[in-house]
Amino acid sequence: MFPKNAWYVACTPDEIADKPLGRQICGERIVFYRGQGGKVAAVEDFCPHRGAPLSLGYVQDGNLVCGYHGLEMGCEGKTISMPAQRVRGFPCIRSYPVEERYGFIWVWPGDAKLAEPGQIHHLEWADNPAWAYGGGLYHIHCDYRLMIDNLMDLTHETYVHATSIGQKEIDEAPVTTKLEGEQVVTSRFMDNIIAPPFWREALRLNGLAHDVPVDRWQICRFNAPSHVMIEVGVAHAGKGGYHAEPADKVSSVVVDFITPETETSHWYFWGMARKFKPEDAELTRIIREGQGKIFGEDREMLERQQQNLLRHPERKLLMLNIDAGGVQSRRVIDRWIAQEGDAQEAA
Amino acid sequence: MFPKNAWYVACTPDEIADKPLGRQICGERIVFYRGQGGKVAAVEDFCPHRGAPLSLGYVQDGNLVCGYHGLEMGCEGKTISMPAQRVRGFPCIRSYPVEERYGFIWVWPGDAKLAEPGQIHHLEWADNPAWAYGGGLYHIHCDYRLMIDNLMDLTHETYVHATSIGQKEIDEAPVTTKLEGEQVVTSRFMDNIIAPPFWREALRLNGLAHDVPVDRWQICRFNAPSHVMIEVGVAHAGKGGYHAEPADKVSSVVVDFITPETETSHWYFWGMARKFKPEDAELTRIIREGQGKIFGEDREMLERQQQNLLRHPERKLLMLNIDAGGVQSRRVIDRWIAQEGDAQEAA
Amino acid sequence: MFPKNAWYVACTPDEIADKPLGRQICGERIVFYRGQGGKVAAVEDFCPHRGAPLSLGYVQDGNLVCGYHGLEMGCEGKTISMPAQRVRGFPCIRSYPVEERYGFIWVWPGDAKLAEPGQIHHLEWADNPAWAYGGGLYHIHCDYRLMIDNLMDLTHETYVHATSIGQKEIDEAPVTTKLEGEQVVTSRFMDNIIAPPFWREALRLNGLAHDVPVDRWQICRFNAPSHVMIEVGVAHAGKGGYHAEPADKVSSVVVDFITPETETSHWYFWGMARKFKPEDAELTRIIREGQGKIFGEDREMLERQQQNLLRHPERKLLMLNIDAGGVQSRRVIDRWIAQEGDAQEAA
Repeated sequence: MFPKNAWYVACTPDEIADKPLGRQICGERIVFYRGQGGKVAAVEDFCPHRGAPLSLGYVQDGNLVCGYHGLEMGCEGKTISMPAQRVRGFPCIRSYPVEERYGFIWVWPGDAKLAEPGQIHHLEWADNPAWAYGGGLYHIHCDYRLMIDNLMDLTHETYVHATSIGQKEIDEAPVTTKLEGEQVVTSRFMDNIIAPPFWREALRLNGLAHDVPVDRWQICRFNAPSHVMIEVGVAHAGKGGYHAEPADKVSSVVVDFITPETETSHWYFWGMARKFKPEDAELTRIIREGQGKIFGEDREMLERQQQNLLRHPERKLLMLNIDAGGVQSRRVIDRWIAQEGDAQEAA
Repeated sequence: MFPKNAWYVACTPDEIADKPLGRQICGERIVFYRGQGGKVAAVEDFCPHRGAPLSLGYVQDGNLVCGYHGLEMGCEGKTISMPAQRVRGFPCIRSYPVEERYGFIWVWPGDAKLAEPGQIHHLEWADNPAWAYGGGLYHIHCDYRLMIDNLMDLTHETYVHATSIGQKEIDEAPVTTKLEGEQVVTSRFMDNIIAPPFWREALRLNGLAHDVPVDRWQICRFNAPSHVMIEVGVAHAGKGGYHAEPADKVSSVVVDFITPETETSHWYFWGMARKFKPEDAELTRIIREGQGKIFGEDREMLERQQQNLLRHPERKLLMLNIDAGGVQSRRVIDRWIAQEGDAQEAA
Repeated sequence: MFPKNAWYVACTPDEIADKPLGRQICGERIVFYRGQGGKVAAVEDFCPHRGAPLSLGYVQDGNLVCGYHGLEMGCEGKTISMPAQRVRGFPCIRSYPVEERYGFIWVWPGDAKLAEPGQIHHLEWADNPAWAYGGGLYHIHCDYRLMIDNLMDLTHETYVHATSIGQKEIDEAPVTTKLEGEQVVTSRFMDNIIAPPFWREALRLNGLAHDVPVDRWQICRFNAPSHVMIEVGVAHAGKGGYHAEPADKVSSVVVDFITPETETSHWYFWGMARKFKPEDAELTRIIREGQGKIFGEDREMLERQQQNLLRHPERKLLMLNIDAGGVQSRRVIDRWIAQEGDAQEAA
């Protein structure tokens, strides 16, 4: 269950740099490519001639050419031409609203009439020279909501990421969850603790003392349909914590776009935006590598959790207060899905 | 959907040279082997004792011995003996009409009473010292009819085989499709063009000038149930094209036997028969290698086309005039299937 | 179809030495681990918090800690604690009777109230310094009963294991099957024959002449639910055969525990117990290696037999006198299953 009338991250520009990209989003098989003037386009990955996947073709003069028999498809899903054939009567295929913004390609897999680019989630750190971003993509075989649960309850760091960002104090610190409009915010503050390895290394790379007590924070923000941004950081203890001066802390935003593929699989775009040393490409590479390793640790747990849940659909999972972030996020998602159903019924 | 009362290519002699071969043809699991006097035999791949696959056994004195407990099976599907056991009452398993001809093993997976070896499609180039043949086998995961469509509409060469045999002039040349009895013939003639790489190389290997304009032809012949022979070639321009003297042209027959395995997979026996330099084994090897590479390019397109069609069974594919060859071929197949149904009903 | 009210071999101690082991037995997904005081425990592999597999966790102070969010599970399936959460109301998960005995971990996947450790099949050769044991584990994709059939009819050795323990005399020797209480015993005696390679080597390794005629025996004993012990050996011909003095023979017990995973897959614990040179670890290694190779030869035959049977559920397999061991064993199994059904109905 996922809302379809929503903007999802579909891919990154490098994935469509050389050739079209076929990708399933919310059950829709879509081909993404750069059409007229380099503008991103998205149509069904199904040639109206013989059903070949258009993603095996290529782009010529801004049109997508089917790699089987040369049908030229326009960005609106209307066939433009085909060598020596009349194409006027060809049925249209579906096209999808698609936007390039903040370094990502966003797609609206639902009712195109309702799509407004202004609804795309604003990323303050993007297109901003004071910030640097690095990230990657994992294909995960579980319901996208299990990943949202995962990210909205960071107690799992103590267990799944014990050697990098986990520490016992996460479990012990109280967690607060609140709703700010439709944004779910769940946060934890741990004062005067020893930083775990990932953060000690971040302090060191940022030129700060890394063997002294710190104040640590985690502020997870969920926005529908499935974006989770987590403000994370440590400051030298007693310097103001989250509000400390830049000279006393190292902080960043963990970025997670969780795009459903099917009911039990999703595309996980993960990354980190940071406001320190933004020009340091080697630092971006090091952080990206470390984060990629950490986020890979969740995969087996989530995929095997999914298998367990499929075997026991009758079991209600427990909802503890640590789960409040996920629970609230799912409520927002459910509301979006219900609204979508109401709108369809009305139409 | 495939006719079962028909002769299909099942395998090549080298595949049964050392041991039995288990292969599924038109939904039937069959074991092929050399029985009494080296004559080819085919029975169900199912031992009546405990259901073991007979193809894991071996041949002894012309009988197939089950590799599990030693049951000896006769070529007619009747158990001959079993160590220290009485076999008189053993149920028979099915045996299949099978013939070795033209360098292939042919099988009739349907009603054995109707099988006549004389119905095997005649191959004029086989068993003929003026011709040479080289080929191979691919296991393709799509409906065998998608491969027939592919071979009866060679406009795909321009796109799928752009670096070898494709060229824009194929799309631009008009295509003619006609029915000769039950044979579907679709042909294209391209005059005074530059030969694409595969044919330039063929001219060169045949000792002809290869950097001059040529006349090119493609004559595809479909015969039920699923054989496609394609006369292809180039002649120096203005020398008579298809009818040019041997000294002015290089020509051959692309050979395709397309044998259904299941509804969505088939065995694709491909090859090339040529009438020039038949004694040159190295040339045979070079052509076979090039053709194998070219025919491998169709696989991803066809298999992903199949996946798309399975997802959208309600969509009618377009039938353009370039598709006439495939459309007519499917009509012949449908007629064979209908006749088979009528015959079964009458019986 | 398998009895669930029975003791099955679940794993060996080395499999739970460092971390918990997740394994499916008779359709139940179970996690095995060493709990309080090193005593073996087994509970459902499903965390009541969010459905994560507990087998991805670790053991701390004798309790199983979930590797996702740190829930501590007790050996009885009752949650003990969770960091900063109240666990009193947590639903219990299932725990399974489990015993460590004879070098194996045994589990009772059925009704725990009926489990009595005294019912575990007695192994006279275990925990006995006069004997040595070596073995391994294979995961086989077929009904466990096909493996029982395999082991209760050793005529297959002649075909499947032709180069090691097979020989024509096995087929030719009469087989006797009888029921001793609930134990099915099927036996063969071959006098004054040439030993096959495996046994010639065993004679040599035991310091006996290996190029002289021998008397060979095979006594297969099935005990429900699925244990097959086979007394095998050769003695110098005319020295008393099975009853010969130790100085004139080499003998051992082939040990097979065949534990259902699903209806069409099982865990095959195979091994060999021997009463000669028990202290010779290198000899154990050599025998284990040879036996592992031999038992690997059955896999393809059994798995493809299973596929054939699934395709033809309507076909009755033949039951010859060589099959009597398997037939009688299945009757015992069917009786156990029927009794289990009666007991459930009564309750």
